[in-house]
Amino acid sequence: MSKEITSRSTDYAQWYNDLILKGGLADYSAVRGCMVIKPYGFALWEHMRDALDRMFKDTGHVNAYFPLFVPKSLFEAEEKNAEGFAKECAVVTHYRLKADPSRKGALIVDPEAKLEEELVVRPTSEAIIWNTYKGWIQSYRDLPILINQWANVVRWEMRTRLFLRTAEFLWQEGHTAHATREEAIEETTRMLDVYADFAENWMALPVIRGVKTESERFAGAVETYCIEAMMQDGKALQAGTSHFLGQNFAKAFDVKFSDKDNKLEYVWATSWGVSTRLIGALVMAHSDDDGLILPPRIAPWQVVIVPIYKGEEQKAKIDVKARALAHELRAAGVRVKYDDNDNARPGWKFAEYEMKGVPVRIAIGARDLENNTVELARRDTREKASVSADGLTERIVVLLEQIQQSIYNKALAFRDEHITKVDSWDAFKQVLNEKGGFISAFWDGTPETEAAIKEETKATIRCIPLNNVQEAGKCVYSGKPATQRVLFAQAY
Amino acid sequence: MSKEITSRSTDYAQWYNDLILKGGLADYSAVRGCMVIKPYGFALWEHMRDALDRMFKDTGHVNAYFPLFVPKSLFEAEEKNAEGFAKECAVVTHYRLKADPSRKGALIVDPEAKLEEELVVRPTSEAIIWNTYKGWIQSYRDLPILINQWANVVRWEMRTRLFLRTAEFLWQEGHTAHATREEAIEETTRMLDVYADFAENWMALPVIRGVKTESERFAGAVETYCIEAMMQDGKALQAGTSHFLGQNFAKAFDVKFSDKDNKLEYVWATSWGVSTRLIGALVMAHSDDDGLILPPRIAPWQVVIVPIYKGEEQKAKIDVKARALAHELRAAGVRVKYDDNDNARPGWKFAEYEMKGVPVRIAIGARDLENNTVELARRDTREKASVSADGLTERIVVLLEQIQQSIYNKALAFRDEHITKVDSWDAFKQVLNEKGGFISAFWDGTPETEAAIKEETKATIRCIPLNNVQEAGKCVYSGKPATQRVLFAQAY
Repeated sequence: MSKEITSRSTDYAQWYNDLILKGGLADYSAVRGCMVIKPYGFALWEHMRDALDRMFKDTGHVNAYFPLFVPKSLFEAEEKNAEGFAKECAVVTHYRLKADPSRKGALIVDPEAKLEEELVVRPTSEAIIWNTYKGWIQSYRDLPILINQWANVVRWEMRTRLFLRTAEFLWQEGHTAHATREEAIEETTRMLDVYADFAENWMALPVIRGVKTESERFAGAVETYCIEAMMQDGKALQAGTSHFLGQNFAKAFDVKFSDKDNKLEYVWATSWGVSTRLIGALVMAHSDDDGLILPPRIAPWQVVIVPIYKGEEQKAKIDVKARALAHELRAAGVRVKYDDNDNARPGWKFAEYEMKGVPVRIAIGARDLENNTVELARRDTREKASVSADGLTERIVVLLEQIQQSIYNKALAFRDEHITKVDSWDAFKQVLNEKGGFISAFWDGTPETEAAIKEETKATIRCIPLNNVQEAGKCVYSGKPATQRVLFAQAY
Repeated sequence: MSKEITSRSTDYAQWYNDLILKGGLADYSAVRGCMVIKPYGFALWEHMRDALDRMFKDTGHVNAYFPLFVPKSLFEAEEKNAEGFAKECAVVTHYRLKADPSRKGALIVDPEAKLEEELVVRPTSEAIIWNTYKGWIQSYRDLPILINQWANVVRWEMRTRLFLRTAEFLWQEGHTAHATREEAIEETTRMLDVYADFAENWMALPVIRGVKTESERFAGAVETYCIEAMMQDGKALQAGTSHFLGQNFAKAFDVKFSDKDNKLEYVWATSWGVSTRLIGALVMAHSDDDGLILPPRIAPWQVVIVPIYKGEEQKAKIDVKARALAHELRAAGVRVKYDDNDNARPGWKFAEYEMKGVPVRIAIGARDLENNTVELARRDTREKASVSADGLTERIVVLLEQIQQSIYNKALAFRDEHITKVDSWDAFKQVLNEKGGFISAFWDGTPETEAAIKEETKATIRCIPLNNVQEAGKCVYSGKPATQRVLFAQAY
């Protein structure tokens, strides 16, 4: 009856792809590594984007738009940033095609339309934005600049996966400019908190706030803060980053301001971003072998109503009831789909909306009309019950909040069960192989040890949690003295 | 006191640029032909986008997202479309940079990272979308597909102007698929009506609905419908287009569906778009020599409140009043800015918000507190008056609607005065040179005459108005028999 989904235990990666494709979130495209975000997936993104956008505006930010292209000479200016992204840059070299003299109807790149300077398709926008800020900032009165941009970016990845790693993706990137170091750091952590708030309260995704080690830092940053989430297969996923950029970009682009004492200083910077990758995290954190499970606050449809009838006369009666209910729910701010499509049977529809992760399903049949009831089913727990049609709207509004909380609690319990304290290298490897999840272990603080652990186990330091306990211990790998535990995991 | 703006009579083009730059809508960028949309300009675009997006959704459309890149072989598939855009395509040929061995810190394109097939940065998305639709459409049950995309596109223009013509611009592009010719034509005209509704009721921009001649048609379309607006310098501006694409793209990408009788048919298509170019139209249609004039429905701020005080004590009292008013206005859905910035004088602020086109200004001084009044000023007419503070919110809500209507009426009167019926070639040239605007004249229907008129006067046929009167006449240029008048104008 339903579309086939590979189970998690059979093949987790294939389960994930099945959900994305059969749930109607995205599709492959003819362009290597790029995907099509289908209407259902895009509606999900719209709800995520709108919630984030409100949070950005509530914290004083405004949106703007900067060019897609970065001239190579600007791209080079901040050397670490350039070095970090050079290997994955799509480069525009020509600005015209012309008829292919050897094949009718075909086109070739016109060699006479070669650009004097190549243009990099933005993998991130610090370079083009800081080059622009140079013209906008003279005095402390011009600061702070608190700008966000919703945009597409391109990073030419060799191995791609729907949503998680695609050559082109959609994201937002905040780029702020400040008069002091303290203010910039405050902004960096404020936006980390916004991301954590969004992940937990909208996506129902518990996250750990932390700071990256030097080797995992954003290219060009002084410090990278992150939120890290745990997937059902025990792998971690970086769900958002907020970078304190120090004066690196101000120095690279010569952006100075005169302070209150008329002294010239370099401007302090932050940048922060989340992307459509979050949709991959959402799918992998909550869904099950029957399909997607979406938290109500961002679900494209929160409720689907399915009529169950024999013949036109029954249908007409149920129609009246269902439409009135849909209308009442919409008035209460609930996103409802009433699926009265004649071409599909109720059973097919049930499976379809389970696949699509609609949080609540209401079925209305002939007997429900007689009894003044409906059948109410929760997608997350699969519970269903016949309930009175009286006060249904209030009940559903409450239920949606309960489901939101319940999905979060389940993910939180899973995440917490998957943080394991480990004090020996053998235990480290055993936990990683058998249980997965975050491993909390002492680390000697050196990049060498970090690299050796990664080499041997593919586990990386996901983060040093904020407000981490400082305690003396021995590094789980080198045995050298350590001052704190950090979180290791294999990651997406 | 205020920033200098060139007057319209001195240099219309410079006046336009001054408004865009000094009004804070956009800025030049380091990328040839690309601009930065500044926060104030982007806020304007957000209101336009959100209004359009609601109208699209109310007419049954959903959003999705397709790749930025189009492989050259797909781009070629619909020959006329490819031919039309080939000359302005940015082309990605490589996917990696590497260190320049001859200059430390510099990067060069890695010749080993040449793409097997070049990627065109989308100038429009018919090709990539119809290649995708091929996989989505098998049966009539899969139709219609009613998808819209908000995206950036790139057309390598040789002469660019802020908003009006930039190498990269933001737009929406609707791409729909239908089972019948009639349904596709209905969709084409429905979306033209949506655009006209939006232009007139949100942007206060009167437009003429019409159809393009063959030579002005979108490359690959069977018929292009358009809305045409009139600017204050007497030039026309195409404000939106809606294309009936027939089966051209279905044939190019082999997209067939089985109809109810199980017969295979090619799918019928439409596409339609408006872009950030509309912001240029908005500026040129309504603004004056003191700055922008924005219609309230899309203005980022509808009301600005400026306190006028001497000393902290007065300021504190005015603050209480102003904040209460701002709060009340916001509760009534009005977008308000309260500018209590100490660093600028009221006179500077007045000029600044006139420049920025904020529809209503409220000034509150010490005497106003005593008298329970405020000074209320309209940006569009420059009228100002001292009015009672009682019932102010209701008054402003009404006033904003009056301003919206008044801006529209003014533009409509100007537009109607600038449609001139002309019946001789001498009169045609004289009106074009001396008065400008639309010239309504008989045309013999041939591309040759159209081309000759364009060659001689730079005037093009903007459109054949919908429901045009059919009447016998003589072509204004060739003297040959003609069946209707069409609208000529010089255009942006």
